[in-house]
Parts: sequence; C-alpha cells; structure tokens
Amino acid sequence: MAKKEKNTIYQLDEIDLKILTHLSNSSKTSLNQLSNILGIPVSTVFARIKKLEEKGIIDKYTLSVDPKKLGFNVTAIINFSVEGSHIEEFEKQISNHPNVLFLYDITGDFDVIAVTRFRNIEELDYFIKNVLKNPYVKRTITNIALRVVKESYPHVPLLIE
Amino acid sequence: MAKKEKNTIYQLDEIDLKILTHLSNSSKTSLNQLSNILGIPVSTVFARIKKLEEKGIIDKYTLSVDPKKLGFNVTAIINFSVEGSHIEEFEKQISNHPNVLFLYDITGDFDVIAVTRFRNIEELDYFIKNVLKNPYVKRTITNIALRVVKESYPHVPLLIE
Amino acid sequence: MAKKEKNTIYQLDEIDLKILTHLSNSSKTSLNQLSNILGIPVSTVFARIKKLEEKGIIDKYTLSVDPKKLGFNVTAIINFSVEGSHIEEFEKQISNHPNVLFLYDITGDFDVIAVTRFRNIEELDYFIKNVLKNPYVKRTITNIALRVVKESYPHVPLLIE
Amino acid sequence: MAKKEKNTIYQLDEIDLKILTHLSNSSKTSLNQLSNILGIPVSTVFARIKKLEEKGIIDKYTLSVDPKKLGFNVTAIINFSVEGSHIEEFEKQISNHPNVLFLYDITGDFDVIAVTRFRNIEELDYFIKNVLKNPYVKRTITNIALRVVKESYPHVPLLIE
Amino acid sequence: MAKKEKNTIYQLDEIDLKILTHLSNSSKTSLNQLSNILGIPVSTVFARIKKLEEKGIIDKYTLSVDPKKLGFNVTAIINFSVEGSHIEEFEKQISNHPNVLFLYDITGDFDVIAVTRFRNIEELDYFIKNVLKNPYVKRTITNIALRVVKESYPHVPLLIE
Amino acid sequence: MAKKEKNTIYQLDEIDLKILTHLSNSSKTSLNQLSNILGIPVSTVFARIKKLEEKGIIDKYTLSVDPKKLGFNVTAIINFSVEGSHIEEFEKQISNHPNVLFLYDITGDFDVIAVTRFRNIEELDYFIKNVLKNPYVKRTITNIALRVVKESYPHVPLLIE
Amino acid sequence: MAKKEKNTIYQLDEIDLKILTHLSNSSKTSLNQLSNILGIPVSTVFARIKKLEEKGIIDKYTLSVDPKKLGFNVTAIINFSVEGSHIEEFEKQISNHPNVLFLYDITGDFDVIAVTRFRNIEELDYFIKNVLKNPYVKRTITNIALRVVKESYPHVPLLIE
Amino acid sequence: MAKKEKNTIYQLDEIDLKILTHLSNSSKTSLNQLSNILGIPVSTVFARIKKLEEKGIIDKYTLSVDPKKLGFNVTAIINFSVEGSHIEEFEKQISNHPNVLFLYDITGDFDVIAVTRFRNIEELDYFIKNVLKNPYVKRTITNIALRVVKESYPHVPLLIE
Repeated sequence: MAKKEKNTIYQLDEIDLKILTHLSNSSKTSLNQLSNILGIPVSTVFARIKKLEEKGIIDKYTLSVDPKKLGFNVTAIINFSVEGSHIEEFEKQISNHPNVLFLYDITGDFDVIAVTRFRNIEELDYFIKNVLKNPYVKRTITNIALRVVKESYPHVPLLIE
Repeated sequence: MAKKEKNTIYQLDEIDLKILTHLSNSSKTSLNQLSNILGIPVSTVFARIKKLEEKGIIDKYTLSVDPKKLGFNVTAIINFSVEGSHIEEFEKQISNHPNVLFLYDITGDFDVIAVTRFRNIEELDYFIKNVLKNPYVKRTITNIALRVVKESYPHVPLLIE
Repeated sequence: MAKKEKNTIYQLDEIDLKILTHLSNSSKTSLNQLSNILGIPVSTVFARIKKLEEKGIIDKYTLSVDPKKLGFNVTAIINFSVEGSHIEEFEKQISNHPNVLFLYDITGDFDVIAVTRFRNIEELDYFIKNVLKNPYVKRTITNIALRVVKESYPHVPLLIE
Repeated sequence: MAKKEKNTIYQLDEIDLKILTHLSNSSKTSLNQLSNILGIPVSTVFARIKKLEEKGIIDKYTLSVDPKKLGFNVTAIINFSVEGSHIEEFEKQISNHPNVLFLYDITGDFDVIAVTRFRNIEELDYFIKNVLKNPYVKRTITNIALRVVKESYPHVPLLIE
Repeated sequence: MAKKEKNTIYQLDEIDLKILTHLSNSSKTSLNQLSNILGIPVSTVFARIKKLEEKGIIDKYTLSVDPKKLGFNVTAIINFSVEGSHIEEFEKQISNHPNVLFLYDITGDFDVIAVTRFRNIEELDYFIKNVLKNPYVKRTITNIALRVVKESYPHVPLLIE
Repeated sequence: MAKKEKNTIYQLDEIDLKILTHLSNSSKTSLNQLSNILGIPVSTVFARIKKLEEKGIIDKYTLSVDPKKLGFNVTAIINFSVEGSHIEEFEKQISNHPNVLFLYDITGDFDVIAVTRFRNIEELDYFIKNVLKNPYVKRTITNIALRVVKESYPHVPLLIE
Repeated sequence: MAKKEKNTIYQLDEIDLKILTHLSNSSKTSLNQLSNILGIPVSTVFARIKKLEEKGIIDKYTLSVDPKKLGFNVTAIINFSVEGSHIEEFEKQISNHPNVLFLYDITGDFDVIAVTRFRNIEELDYFIKNVLKNPYVKRTITNIALRVVKESYPHVPLLIE
Repeated sequence: MAKKEKNTIYQLDEIDLKILTHLSNSSKTSLNQLSNILGIPVSTVFARIKKLEEKGIIDKYTLSVDPKKLGFNVTAIINFSVEGSHIEEFEKQISNHPNVLFLYDITGDFDVIAVTRFRNIEELDYFIKNVLKNPYVKRTITNIALRVVKESYPHVPLLIE
C-alpha cells in the first residue's frame, strides 16, 4: 500500500507568468525590453525563457492572423454524432482539414465538436456535404457564429496566482 | 441603380501562404532561412512580410503554450442560454475571464458557446457556479472534452489555393 | 339535428388550372396567347380569368425578384418561443419587418417560425439581437439556410386533378 | 497578394425600390400610372423597369393565389433528417412535389425544412407516409401551422435605404 | 370551376346533446326517465335516439370499468419512433394488444403515441422489451402517469352550442 | 415487524372477463343472450354482473360516439409544462374543458399530457391561445394526430388470464 | 372472482428501523451497545436482528470505502441508447465492469443509465470508447459529476413511520 | 517555477484489494478466516485492515438492505434544473430526504440528478409535487427504473491492478 502518485506538473511563479503574458502579446519583445519592463536582470529573463522552452511549456513561437482580412467571414461550430467504433478514425481524418481550427472529443449529446472557418456559406455547405458522405457520421448540427467574441493566444489561462 | 459593393479582402498567393505557414510553425525563422527554404530572394521575403504586417493580416507574433505541462487537464465546452437583452453584456463580462479561451455568439439552441480550460473539475465547478449567479444566465450545458484533438495556430485556414 | 355544414370552397377544373399555371409563370401572357396555347376561344379565357379574379382566387398580379442579384445572401429560418399571452401581439409586430418573408404560428416545440432574408450575417445578428430585446421572447433558434432549394410562385399547389 | 474580390451585386436607389414595391402590389400598373404616382417621366419609368428586367432583378411577372379559396386549409412545416450522402438527391425529388412550396437546406437539428400546403390532414398524412418510404429519410417532424401570419410577395425585403 | 365540396357532418341541437350527455352518464336510463328529465314527449325521445343510432352517431352501448379495482396501477404513455415505411404495419400489430388503450399516428418528434395500462412495472417492462424486439422500432420513450386526471366517456366533446 | 400490507384488488376469472367483454361491445345484451352465448345459467350471469356492479368494477353504463360524424376532425395531443406549484390547480381547471378527453400527470419532459378533440384547426388554435394565457403554463407542444388508430372501450385491458 | 393478491412485504416498526439505522452507521456495534442505546433487552435486540437476517432484509454486512482516498476523482453518469432487442444482453455485459457502480434500465429518452467512477478523464475516455465498439449501442451521453452530493448506505430509505 | 503538485492518493496492492473485496462481501469475516483464505499471517491481515481504517480508506462498516423486502418497488432517476444561484442550497435541502439515495451535481442538460426509491407511484408523485413547490426548481424529468440491474457495495471499483 501507500505508494503515492506523482505528476510532473509545473507551477509558474509571478515572473514566469509575466514573461509568458508579454511574449504572448508580442513574442518578438527583446530580452532587454523584458528586463526593463519587469525590472529584473537580462540574465534572469534569459534563464527563465530557456527553462520554459526546455520544459516544453513554450511549445513554439507562432503568429496570429486576422481572418476578416483574408475574407474568412463564416465561423461555424459543428457538432458530429459518429458511429461509436469509428470516432477516433473520424477525428484523425477531419483534423487534417485546414478549415477545422479546433476539434474536441466530447461527452455530451454529440461525440465531436469542431470550430471551423470558411470564406462564405457555399464553402461551408460544400464542407458539410462532403463530411456527410462519410457513412459513419450519423448526424451533424451546425451553429453559425453571429460574432466571434474572443479567440485568445495562447490556449492557456495566464493569470497571476 | 448599379452601384457595386466593395470589400477590401486580400487574397494571398502561394508565396504569401508559404511564408505564413512557416512563420506559424516557427515565427523566429529568419529571413535568410525563409529565403533558402522558399527559393526566393531575401528582399522579396522581407517585402512580403512587411506587407502582411502593414495590411494587418499578421496581427501579432505570439507563442503556443502546452496546457498539460501547466496542469490544465480539464477542457470544457460550455453552452450558455442568456436572457435576450443581456447577451452582449454577458459576453463582455465572461470574455474577460482568463479560463475562457474561445467565445462565440451563436445561432442555435444556445446563445453563447465557450471553450474553457481548468486545472481540475473543482475549478470548473467553481467557475460554473459563479457564472450561474448571473441572473441573466438561464441555462448552461457543460461538455467536458475527453480529448483535445486539434487546436491550430493561427486561427485561419492556410491552404495553397 | 341534421343541419349540414357548408363551405364555399372552389374546385378548379383542368382549364382553370392551366390558366393559373401559365399566368403564374408569366402573368403578362396575353389572352390571345393563352387562347392559342390552350386551344380554347379568347372569350372563354377572358371569362375564366374574370371569374378567378372575382372569386378572389387570383389575389393580385405581382412579380418575382431575384434575391442574389440584390445581395441578399443569407436566408435564415428562425424559431421563436414566446410567452403565451403575447404570441399574437409579437406576430403582428414582427410581421411588419421587411426581412421577414414568411411567418407561421405553429404547434411544435416553438410557437412561431419565420423565414427571413438578409444581406449578411451582421444584419441577421442585428435583427436577432433586436428581437431578443422584446421581453416576451423566451428563446430563439436560428437555422441558416445552406441553400434555397425551392420558393414557388404562387403559394398554392397547382396540379391537374 | 492583394487581388480584390468582386461581386456583381446591385444596389437599388429609392426610385427602383418604389417601382418594385408598386409592381409587387400590382404588376399590371401601367407606365403612366407609375409616372403619375412617383412624379417622374414615363421614359424614366420605362428605362428603369427595362434595366431591372435585363439585370434579372425582376425575375418574372406572376400572380398571388388565395389558398383558402381553393380549400387548402392545412399548412405544415416539415423537418427532414436525411442520410448525409443522399440529401441533395432527396431535395431534388421532393422539390418536384407541387404541395412543397418552400424548401431549404439548413444547418440545424434537421437537414431540410419544407413549407407545405394541403387540403386536409388526410392528404398531409398520405404525403408524409409516402416520403417516409424513401429509405434515406431518417426522421421527420411535422408542425402544423395554426395560422399563416405572413407570406409576402416578392421573396425579397423591399425597403427604402 | 365552382363545384362545391359537400361534407355530411351532423350538427346536434340542444335536445340531441342533452340526450347524449344523459346516456353517456347512464346508458340504461329509460325513455320515460329521459322524457321526464328533459320535459319532452317519450315519442320524441325515442325518435331522436333512433336517429342518433341510425346515423351512426351513437356507435355502440358500452361500459366503463374501474382499472384500480382490477389492479391496473400503472398507466404509461409510450412514444414510438418507427422506420418510415413500416409505421402502418406497426400500428396494426400493436393496436391488437389489449394493454394498448389509445393509439395515435402523430406529427411530432415521434411517429406513434400510445396510452397503455398495466398491473405493475414488471408487466410494463415485459411489454416494452417485447415491442423493442420489432426491428422497425427505432426508439421509445415511456412516461409513466403519476396520476390519471381524466378519462371521459364518450370520446367526443358534448357541449351545448 | 412483520405486519403484511393488504390490497383489495379483485382478480377476474374467465367468466367475469367474458361477461365484461360482451357488455363492453354491447351493454344492452340481455341476460338471456349472455346465458346462451356463454353456456351458463341466467341466474349465474345475473349474480356475476350484480357483483361486478357492487364491487364498483363496472363503474357505469355508457356509450361510444363517432367523432367524425359530428365533424370532430382534429385530434391533438398536447404536452404542457407547468410551473411546479400550480400543476394540480392547472389540471383541475383544464380537465373541465369538454374538448379535453384524456388527461395525465406524467413523469417526463412535460408535466401534463392531454388528448383533445376539435372540429378544425381554428378551434384548436383558439383553445391553445386561451390556455397559454394562464401565466403558470410555461410551454406547450401540440402534436396533431394524422390518424386515430385505436380508442378502446372500456379503458382497461380485458384478456383471458 | 374475488381472489385477492398477496405480497409478502415486511413493514418495520420503530425498533427495527432504529436497529437498522444504527447498524448502517456502524455494523460493528455490539448487541450490548444497541441494548443500551435503544433501552431494550439484549435478547430482544438479538431476536430482532436474527429475524431481519432470516427474512433477508439485512442482505449482507459490508463496508463503505472513500473513493477520493484511492484517487477515484471522476464520477460520470452515462446514458446509453441500445438497440431494442439487445438491451438485456448489454446490461449483463456492462454490469460486470467494476467501474460501473449503479445500473438502471429506464423508461426515458435513453434505455440504460449507469453511475460510473474512474481515476481520471483518460480512464473514462477509454471506457466509453470501448463500450461504443459494441455495435448495439446507438448513442451515449456522459455527464461528469461536478460534485458527489450524497451516496447513502444502505440503498433503502430508513425513516421512522 | 517548478514546484510540483502533490496529492495524497493511496494505491492499493493486491493484498489490500483482496481484503477489501472480502470485507465488502461480508464485513464480519474474522481475521482468522481472512488469514486462511488469503494465505497470509493473521498479524499481517490485522495490520493491513488497521492501516486501511486509519487512512480513512475504510470509511465505515455498514450493511446492505433488500429494498424489495420492505416494499420499495419504485426506483426513479430524477433530473432537476435549478436556478443557478440556488443549486447548492437546493442540493443540501434535498439530500436530507431519506428517499434520495444518490445525488450528483452534473454538467449536462440538467443541474442535479438523483436516484430515489419509493414504495409506489403515489409516494413518488407526492415527493415530486413537493419538490416542485420550491420556486428555484425550474424543471424536472423523472425516469422510472424498469429494472435495477446493479447497485454495488462499496461505491468504488475494486479490481486487481
């Protein structure tokens, strides 16, 4: 008895969180700038970022693109009900589609939920009709977003604890 | 009659798309590296990125953070039904919450859908109970994600057209 | 006992139906053209149309307009659940709105269903948010049409019986 | 980069709208009458209508028929859930049926919604039972209209902008 | 044109209605008693009842039995969703079952609704499991009645008009 | 311990059941006829019926009326969701309405279900709009019967056990 | 006629109930302790317990285990919709699974409901995906418990009557 | 950074599990019996049980009671939708009711789910009508169990790992 479970979960202190918050707003901020803003030595900033990268907490440096500027006016949340034994296969297939931004295997009325983005309703129609040709998809419900209220970068809550 | 509607929507050519794709995978890729990979002069790469920035297509440089490493094990998709005249006010309020990653005003059975992330079920419970104290929230349904299948950066389909 | 109920319902014969069908496809078809096409005297065509007008079967001469040409790209079917004692008042109010094409008081999960048409999703959003300010509207579900498959003129089945 | 999308969408001015509104109420209104009512020369009225016809904005001249006078007392809104890969085929087939007035491919809980009109409940029953023999129709929900509140001609919002 | 539809529907006057109401409360009431109660001659009472029988308005003389006295404690309303092309066949089969009191072919979320009565929950369970062996029954929902509020004899509204 | 619960529930033997079955098909069948049909002495038939009446198993003698003959063409199953503390009050009120044939307090998605009968859709519409003026009725769903498949007299399964 | 149904149902008196209540809180309470607490002779306590055991009212002596202490943090209520003719077979199979604590065959929207307990969401996901490989399971909905409010021992209401 | 989260979760070895399994089937099994069955010294059995008790893994010794023997024939699963800010208060109140066996705060269409047990449908009706008098309960759905398939003691999966 009495072996205890261990999980390697990292807890960030206030400095880590401030660094991550600044970098997520502008990942090109220099070490010097961060040092000035946060009032800590450049070497500390460097060491901290290094650690965040090594531990895999910072997964990659990326960018945010404005969908409206590229004409992606239609955001649709699509719920899929899939035949039980083909859910994972379906998820793999559909997650390859570039119009599928976010994809979750869920516990509710449906099996899979996707946030998708298209230029217009015709493109969305074409996408859905195509997915529905998959014989394992039993049912879909599509909710078109009247407005995108928030899409944060990164995909993690960053709050001072 | 016959005035025609104009929309300033930018269409990217293949080079733009390749640049965006590379930068979204690693926004620290240098101009030289991009020049080598794509086989086009550094000056062209520079000019293209400059334009993408000026037009606001590249919105900001940011980073991707691994939720699991920080102990965010619970991803929940929450559907809210809100009293009609208070939807926008509710959306503003809830979008300030760091645990709310993505938030959409939708057309279906519910008025608002949120993708949220928490450390554990207790935190999620606390969040929901708090939201439900808002007298304009009529109903919520929470679907916990059994698995996060895909969360792409950036939030735009980047495909060669 | 034994008084029998009478309903003044007109049953059309084949000639009436053919005339109505032709006029609905092109209400500017002349009496002569109809006479030629149907192989019956002009005087008969005239008398028949006269009767159809007098009985109120032909309600009015109107026209069909192409929504796409005017930029009406978004057709939405909206279901309203309204507080019981305010349904009729709500129906009057909303039926005055030009974007509401068809409106029915129904027996199902919702009380009222409307077929609506807008230029874009923003206009639809504005319309819905406005309707939802009505305190008697308890719930709406909006289904955006991926395609308009059929919208017949006139709104009556015309088939040879 | 930077090619801009063009859509040939016509925007009507106040005169166009007034002409369309008058013709939709009575498409037999003469050029002279319109000239008098609107206070513009007959030649202008003529030219405007000509353009509206040429551009295809006026699709056809048609008529409005009173369903009650012909004994069509039952209006039913029918929702169909159809096997994914047979939706378009099903839509074609069912749109040929004269009792189907309006038909939309939608995004919600069901795949197709139809506004239908029948003489009585027996006719509606016969229609539904027939449709249900199609093996690709998985489910239907029929809502009978307690009242037809509005069915506008034409199927486009005509409002002064 | 202009042939008018005729329906042989009988409208009852006040005397007919009073007779039907009395007989439905006690069909053994004698002609003399009815004559006294209603204040009309026996011969009129006789003639009226004769007509009501001949026209088939009075379908049969029957009796009301108290379910509780026979131990029928469980009343269940069962909704059936049946494969489209087998609904009528299913209805025939199930209507033969003595525990099925009332059976309707309906327009809503389900295809058939039955009011059923059983001695106890085990009997109901046995019935449902048996019905579910029919491969054309796709889904059932059973609502057990917490109370039987009203079950009128006869199955027609009898009100003075 | 060990007091045992007693229920006064009567179990019918084959003769009781046969008598009830015959009387429910024609409650005017004479004792002699029953004696002949069943092959048992008149005195026994008499004694049996007497007992069935005394125990209250035979509740009353009544009649079956044909709704179609009186023009009651619309049968609607109406589901009511009522504010919790007013369900019983609502049930009393609505059960007084002659168009409500059967009324049950149920366990499912709705609180009360009623089988109702009307001459036409307008009458049904009037009834529903009236009920909805009751502020405690939160929601109704009306399913119109496409066909009445079975409505048995009496409201008890009579089968040989 | 008139045979009366008998059920061997035991009704407990106040002493039985007090004994059961004490034993359910601590089944190791000695006869002497119970005698003292309840103020009745040891021999009576002994006799009563003996009877409760002999009649099978006390089914077995068991223990309560704290799930949190063993890391079972995820309680999920799972609803199963199963093909009609395979429900009982499915129930047998799934009830053998140790993570299934409680299992009921129900009357509602679903056929079977299970209360299940797992260490974490991954284990739950694995369980569900496995169950869904059963071709007779048509649909599942999983509700994760945000909190376990009550799980009483024993599974019977013990109240003084 | 890098403080690691610790959870005091105990993992049982095979011997612990075997002891718990035996005691849950019969908590009166003596140390000697367990020693014989498991083939380990009495002192070890004693020490193990002692630890399981001290750590709070064994929460209490209790008993299993047969509901059928006491006439509890009706098991109902009740779903409650409660006004957001009163959920916890409602849960406290209802969990005091002896007929409520299991109670969970859930994430789905409803806020609270209860497994309840009653002698008959009238008792259940009385309970529900009482709960519905609570003004914060917006909606309930009751599913009566056709069969109780499994209710395990204890409420934890005990499987050899």
